[in-house]
Amino acid sequence: MHHAHDDSSSRASARTGIWFVGARGSVASTATVGLAAITHGQSPPTGCVTAREPFASAALPAFADLVVGGHDISAVTMTKRAECLVETGMIPQRLLAATHDALERADAEVRSGYDPHAAAHGGPEEAHGSSQQDAAERLAADITAFQERHALARVVVIDVSSTEPPVVPVPEHYDTDALLAALADPTRSVLPASSVSAYAAILAGAAYAAFTPSAGMGLPALIQLARDRGIPAAGQDGKTGETWLRTVLAPAFAARGLKVLSWAGTNLLGGGDGATLADPEAVRSKLASKNRGLRALTGSDTTPLHIDNVPDLGDIKVAWDHVHVEGFLGSRLTLQTTWSAHDSMLAAPLVLDLARLLALAHAAGISGTVPELGYFFKDPWDSDVHDAAEQAGALEDWVRRTSAQVR
Amino acid sequence: MHHAHDDSSSRASARTGIWFVGARGSVASTATVGLAAITHGQSPPTGCVTAREPFASAALPAFADLVVGGHDISAVTMTKRAECLVETGMIPQRLLAATHDALERADAEVRSGYDPHAAAHGGPEEAHGSSQQDAAERLAADITAFQERHALARVVVIDVSSTEPPVVPVPEHYDTDALLAALADPTRSVLPASSVSAYAAILAGAAYAAFTPSAGMGLPALIQLARDRGIPAAGQDGKTGETWLRTVLAPAFAARGLKVLSWAGTNLLGGGDGATLADPEAVRSKLASKNRGLRALTGSDTTPLHIDNVPDLGDIKVAWDHVHVEGFLGSRLTLQTTWSAHDSMLAAPLVLDLARLLALAHAAGISGTVPELGYFFKDPWDSDVHDAAEQAGALEDWVRRTSAQVR
Amino acid sequence: MHHAHDDSSSRASARTGIWFVGARGSVASTATVGLAAITHGQSPPTGCVTAREPFASAALPAFADLVVGGHDISAVTMTKRAECLVETGMIPQRLLAATHDALERADAEVRSGYDPHAAAHGGPEEAHGSSQQDAAERLAADITAFQERHALARVVVIDVSSTEPPVVPVPEHYDTDALLAALADPTRSVLPASSVSAYAAILAGAAYAAFTPSAGMGLPALIQLARDRGIPAAGQDGKTGETWLRTVLAPAFAARGLKVLSWAGTNLLGGGDGATLADPEAVRSKLASKNRGLRALTGSDTTPLHIDNVPDLGDIKVAWDHVHVEGFLGSRLTLQTTWSAHDSMLAAPLVLDLARLLALAHAAGISGTVPELGYFFKDPWDSDVHDAAEQAGALEDWVRRTSAQVR
Amino acid sequence: MHHAHDDSSSRASARTGIWFVGARGSVASTATVGLAAITHGQSPPTGCVTAREPFASAALPAFADLVVGGHDISAVTMTKRAECLVETGMIPQRLLAATHDALERADAEVRSGYDPHAAAHGGPEEAHGSSQQDAAERLAADITAFQERHALARVVVIDVSSTEPPVVPVPEHYDTDALLAALADPTRSVLPASSVSAYAAILAGAAYAAFTPSAGMGLPALIQLARDRGIPAAGQDGKTGETWLRTVLAPAFAARGLKVLSWAGTNLLGGGDGATLADPEAVRSKLASKNRGLRALTGSDTTPLHIDNVPDLGDIKVAWDHVHVEGFLGSRLTLQTTWSAHDSMLAAPLVLDLARLLALAHAAGISGTVPELGYFFKDPWDSDVHDAAEQAGALEDWVRRTSAQVR
Repeated sequence: MHHAHDDSSSRASARTGIWFVGARGSVASTATVGLAAITHGQSPPTGCVTAREPFASAALPAFADLVVGGHDISAVTMTKRAECLVETGMIPQRLLAATHDALERADAEVRSGYDPHAAAHGGPEEAHGSSQQDAAERLAADITAFQERHALARVVVIDVSSTEPPVVPVPEHYDTDALLAALADPTRSVLPASSVSAYAAILAGAAYAAFTPSAGMGLPALIQLARDRGIPAAGQDGKTGETWLRTVLAPAFAARGLKVLSWAGTNLLGGGDGATLADPEAVRSKLASKNRGLRALTGSDTTPLHIDNVPDLGDIKVAWDHVHVEGFLGSRLTLQTTWSAHDSMLAAPLVLDLARLLALAHAAGISGTVPELGYFFKDPWDSDVHDAAEQAGALEDWVRRTSAQVR
Repeated sequence: MHHAHDDSSSRASARTGIWFVGARGSVASTATVGLAAITHGQSPPTGCVTAREPFASAALPAFADLVVGGHDISAVTMTKRAECLVETGMIPQRLLAATHDALERADAEVRSGYDPHAAAHGGPEEAHGSSQQDAAERLAADITAFQERHALARVVVIDVSSTEPPVVPVPEHYDTDALLAALADPTRSVLPASSVSAYAAILAGAAYAAFTPSAGMGLPALIQLARDRGIPAAGQDGKTGETWLRTVLAPAFAARGLKVLSWAGTNLLGGGDGATLADPEAVRSKLASKNRGLRALTGSDTTPLHIDNVPDLGDIKVAWDHVHVEGFLGSRLTLQTTWSAHDSMLAAPLVLDLARLLALAHAAGISGTVPELGYFFKDPWDSDVHDAAEQAGALEDWVRRTSAQVR
Repeated sequence: MHHAHDDSSSRASARTGIWFVGARGSVASTATVGLAAITHGQSPPTGCVTAREPFASAALPAFADLVVGGHDISAVTMTKRAECLVETGMIPQRLLAATHDALERADAEVRSGYDPHAAAHGGPEEAHGSSQQDAAERLAADITAFQERHALARVVVIDVSSTEPPVVPVPEHYDTDALLAALADPTRSVLPASSVSAYAAILAGAAYAAFTPSAGMGLPALIQLARDRGIPAAGQDGKTGETWLRTVLAPAFAARGLKVLSWAGTNLLGGGDGATLADPEAVRSKLASKNRGLRALTGSDTTPLHIDNVPDLGDIKVAWDHVHVEGFLGSRLTLQTTWSAHDSMLAAPLVLDLARLLALAHAAGISGTVPELGYFFKDPWDSDVHDAAEQAGALEDWVRRTSAQVR
Repeated sequence: MHHAHDDSSSRASARTGIWFVGARGSVASTATVGLAAITHGQSPPTGCVTAREPFASAALPAFADLVVGGHDISAVTMTKRAECLVETGMIPQRLLAATHDALERADAEVRSGYDPHAAAHGGPEEAHGSSQQDAAERLAADITAFQERHALARVVVIDVSSTEPPVVPVPEHYDTDALLAALADPTRSVLPASSVSAYAAILAGAAYAAFTPSAGMGLPALIQLARDRGIPAAGQDGKTGETWLRTVLAPAFAARGLKVLSWAGTNLLGGGDGATLADPEAVRSKLASKNRGLRALTGSDTTPLHIDNVPDLGDIKVAWDHVHVEGFLGSRLTLQTTWSAHDSMLAAPLVLDLARLLALAHAAGISGTVPELGYFFKDPWDSDVHDAAEQAGALEDWVRRTSAQVR
């Protein structure tokens, strides 16, 4: 088994683990249902970027070569979560039935996540008086055991857990040595939970993607550590719906020489995400990352944006945008867009894409941030490109180039 | 003066004539107001593609080097037309005041267009018993006289006249020699008016752009003639508003691996264009060219589309689109867009762009269709690229390359 | 049993039959599922006008006192139809399970409808050489047998079958005696199918509602016959969605002294209704009745309207309206509305309301058209009131008044 | 002159003054332009409720019998304000030209308003150490002088000034005697500016309307005082656009038995109002009064609502509403509305209506609140009716009844 592992490690197309941080949430459960449905031919891979050319012929692991596990602090299983999503009409009953066993298998690979609140009081998983380093090592051991159990060439850790409030910066976030020292100190709690998980990915030698606006690996000291230890990383905050639409439209206006005066938006959503974002602290992270690209693309700073919790909408997200544009001779034009979609159904295929693409990056020995994966993120690391078409082009080039390299 | 003319003919940046077919319509009048306003610093060139990089530093004639003339069959002057557009709130009063003299000068360069109905009865301009060849020569002489009067390096003819019904094909449209023979025959009327004007452009050695869905130069025999005689030509049917938006959005869905199931649209517009398109025959040309790109981009053939004449909207065009898309695991998402704009304010700056770009093509000695100008058209000649972002990239490359060539 | 029947006939609240023309279509099947679900407490009567005051305390038959039967020319059962509606996500699986037996019972009461195409060739139900009188008598006998089988105080016939093309008027449509003579003539086919069914309702002494734009009982000679024979009748063309919204909004603009300049609309729908209305002949009936009220309410005749068949939308109807309004000092305002709903889910509860209300009219001995039921119709018989709020008030008054009369 | 005054005071149709609090703002300036344009036949009274029956034949003062004056703390004249509104495209140039003299005459009747900030420091108008009673008496004297100067039968004071933050209640707001004592105390400042103006209306014997959400006369002690001194009063917060639309739609859903689950809204506006409402304190008053009626009408408390300052929209207000509704068998429907209008163009004609209707109330000797004027307000005083159609009916009844009384 060890031997096979070694052989396959240089092939991007070898068996690959997806380790979800937040494995029992909507996105991870939906991705797991979808992965099983695609693998067994019950559903086409619609909504997956990597299912079309040039990705289809690139050196990526097949859908059938992806194995799911993860961390979560919830006791509600992936199967139970998927049943709720059937109830709300998001996942079809027949797909749940067809993928039930795969969900159960994936949920059997879920381990207790790091819960800073429990940890502070010596909760069930972290011993009283343990440090964040201890916690991260426990998490890393879960990932390593998963990799060995399934003889995986590599693991990609993807954070799809609930959005945290913005992190308050401390000097250790900017200095690797200081950070490592602080982590070892049981009296300190220098990282938010998402960053402890990201650090665990580094310890486990796993590739990493930050699909939420939480800090995750996006602290300078952690990024540096990833670079030092040969870990490819991509982030941040999945560009799934309205923000993606904005980064399609804004560059198109610019290409026409039209001037965006204001771009106002309102998002309505229910579900767990709606409830999380009803917290004014948590929503701040989200609003900031949603607006950054838009302001860069348009030059306008009149971009009022709201996220409202509308529980009766369930998993549906409705977004209205009003774009006010100056044209020839000071004339005005308006574009309104209304977007309505199941948010998890947009995120889940992109998460599968990221697993496949980061497997390629890992196989190619790429370390640190992969700016060419900016297409997937509201706030792309180490890139100031937000234009979706330009990002798509850069992604295709990168995949062609890197595939050639690993073959 | 003749000497200067000779010198400048190799420089794309030399004084260039714009000869509008339909010079007294909304688009030409608005473009003329705008050209004067930009030249005299009363308005920035917002909405002009060529005002931004890399065009701003390309070998294009300056706005100040463009001189306007044209043909029309209407007796209502450009100034009068512009006054109406002030009345409806489209053109600001102060800009009309500032550009009044320029409009008067341009209108003084307007000559009687070819009116097939009048021609059939030996109308005021065409002698009784004259052929379409005679008519085209008269039109060409107007263009040549304009060029000499203003010592212009070259002229670009741009058709912005009212949309004609779809042309009924005859064998002469496909055979240059047969066409030339038929044109000389006073008993035959083998070309629609827009194509007589296009033929006149060829006779006058002028570059040509078809900004409407009318046949214009878009008949195989005429395109061949343009190629033979060294005339660069671009078309067809300006991609100004809703169709442009569709060619921005549809490729973006495809890049995400999302599948468009249906794309329904409704256009409301008043003004002269609304009235013209209330004619079910004329609207057929328009609807066909509006839908062609969409179907190519999405693969869906459920693309119901309507154009309604709503006179009270005046020059404003309102377009609603409803896009129904299949995503991951058969989930559905919808995007609605509502676009509201003064149509002539979108078209006018693109028309100025085309004049500048075709001047470059002419200076570089390019003959026949210029597919790299497809960005500007619903139905690009000799190109099956409809993706606006891809077209914008191809246009930029072409301008850089061709500018380097003429310098 | 006969005795009980006699006793109950003067009580509006006695057991009442609903006889659907088109019993195996979406609307009738949904209404039958709903009736069972309401009766057994599995669903509240949301969307039923008569579930709220003052109707809740009026002399109407209880939901539990309604019994379903009907005619149809389709062999696909109500249960099968409901299963399809579960498949498309319109009816929840749990409700189908809970109402399965009620659907089976109702479908057992469905008899072969009148099929003019089969009849012309002496099809399975109508004997060769039989007249439309013969056909109507057969249909009436089905209704009477249903009434006796279930000891019903009365039956209400409701036409929810597919829309027919506009009827070509003949003199017999305006003269009762001439009509009766023509019906008896086996060589003639003077009525469309919907009107044969309406005539059968008259023969059976049943109240009648025309929920479609088809002719039905809406021919002068039939209305006269209903009046003569003591039959209450209401029509025409259910006002369920976009048209209802228009008759809410248009009077509100008028009350403000605002002037509607144009009101443009587009309807997208799939399902059987979408396919039926893709037929340009059938859609003519629908478009005419949809626009009539709007023109009466606004005085504007710029009301372009389209219905497009978009099969991928299934049972969902999406309607976009653009209202252009003149306000103070010639200023303009626009209102856009986008309506998205399952059309059958809007129609079904109104159909149950009509059954209950026409039972009251029948008990009160009202003959001929009941203009106070105009609230339910796009084209109210014997009324020029289209204002939804005014209609709602008139309906409440009528129910109070008539209830007092029958108690 | 005094004699004529006495005679006319019993006729509602006699010459009537409109005294604007905030006379130099957009609403008052637009109303003044409009009043002149209507009086001189340059514009029809579109948008005025009282221009149609039964109001047109009621005992109301003619538009030509209305004379304008008012208070303001701004030095920018009504004419200058109107010129700005021409500049932004709201008021047509030709109407400004036609009404210039009327604007100048009205502005000559504008006196310095009460400025609490200036007053606190013994500003230009209020003497150092003066009380709010002194200030109110000064304001009342301005109104009385205006009435005498123009021999007006009566004056209607209408508050259209900028929205104040919510008032902090003190015991004096609930006790007339305590309030009067506090007003006389130069060391206290117990009323916000809008309420000092309302108190001045009482002192001057003028009818009063609160068109903004500011406290104005809406404090219990002031309402009591109005009742005691024979002053009719109406409020509060003009129901002009989106809120009006909501009170049209919400009752219509209820009449259908449909259940509103959530009603989310976003308002974008620029202009002075946008800037005022960008202040989170001021916007609180507005949001509360906008949502109150909606919650009463729907029973839903999921009604997220935002007002964003979008300066580039100028005087245009754009409002998007998303209504999520439960229908039959738990089905869901959505209605989206987008409203776009010049806010002052909606308010101005309603303000003229209120002047005419309060003149009638005054002539009829009505004291205290007039709940039958609730049609005009988001937060109707002494009424819990929000349904626009029901309010319109009550208003018509009241006008008929009261007109009969004064004739």
